Amino acid sequence: MKVFILAAAAAALLTLAMPASAQFAKPEDAIKYRQSALFVMGQHFGRVGAMATGRAPFDAKVAVDNAEVIASMAKLPWAAFGPGTDKGATTKANPEIWTEQAKFKEASEKLIAESTKLAAAAKTGNLDAVKTAFNATAASCKACHDVYRGR
Amino acid sequence: MKVFILAAAAAALLTLAMPASAQFAKPEDAIKYRQSALFVMGQHFGRVGAMATGRAPFDAKVAVDNAEVIASMAKLPWAAFGPGTDKGATTKANPEIWTEQAKFKEASEKLIAESTKLAAAAKTGNLDAVKTAFNATAASCKACHDVYRGR
Repeated sequence: MKVFILAAAAAALLTLAMPASAQFAKPEDAIKYRQSALFVMGQHFGRVGAMATGRAPFDAKVAVDNAEVIASMAKLPWAAFGPGTDKGATTKANPEIWTEQAKFKEASEKLIAESTKLAAAAKTGNLDAVKTAFNATAASCKACHDVYRGR
Repeated sequence: MKVFILAAAAAALLTLAMPASAQFAKPEDAIKYRQSALFVMGQHFGRVGAMATGRAPFDAKVAVDNAEVIASMAKLPWAAFGPGTDKGATTKANPEIWTEQAKFKEASEKLIAESTKLAAAAKTGNLDAVKTAFNATAASCKACHDVYRGR
């Protein structure tokens, strides 16, 4: 079982890592792509956050619409951190992204998992559930940023 | 029936136009958001295009994965063209976007419709279907850009 999990993790890592170089014409495209995807996600995350923190009235439909975009966008940026995309345009990406690929992948998967839970929480229409899932998602953003962004 | 359609169109237009001002903290965020969403979409569109035009071997799964992202992303940029977002950051958006809102909305809906068809075409696994849908989608990009971008 453990071997299977490791093999599956390795395969998933390859899936994430392999297409990156082929997908982007040049490193600056990859950098712009990941920054764009994260910015779009961040805008929608801010809208859920405004409701989760009481700065905006809770609207279940708005929460669902935004949480679904977040969950979709959360999957996108990671393929754009392929080999050779550590430079080529202004980037806050820390070099550890490329020296600690397994840990970075784990951090990205944490976001994907938490944002999927956030979308599910939004669908319950329960503000407390949204708050809990929002906080967990925000923690996954922060945990990754603390190590891999902006040093 | 005609009245109903007009009423529905007016309601849809309001839905598109109304949240925009509330959604973005400042015009530059809206501008960055729409540019980001369009850039992400464009990268995925380029990957389908490479296969549709024979520059890359056809891989049905890659086509589906990319076409689904395109269809999702195609819905996002339009809410970020709200009132007051014609300036505030570098933008290629032409002023007609705000003086011809119904026509601009029609152009955006054309892209949404064509990209939805592209995703459906990709799921058939048939390259000819992908080519046809890709060309129709590309035509909807161009038709909008010709009028509303970069003058």
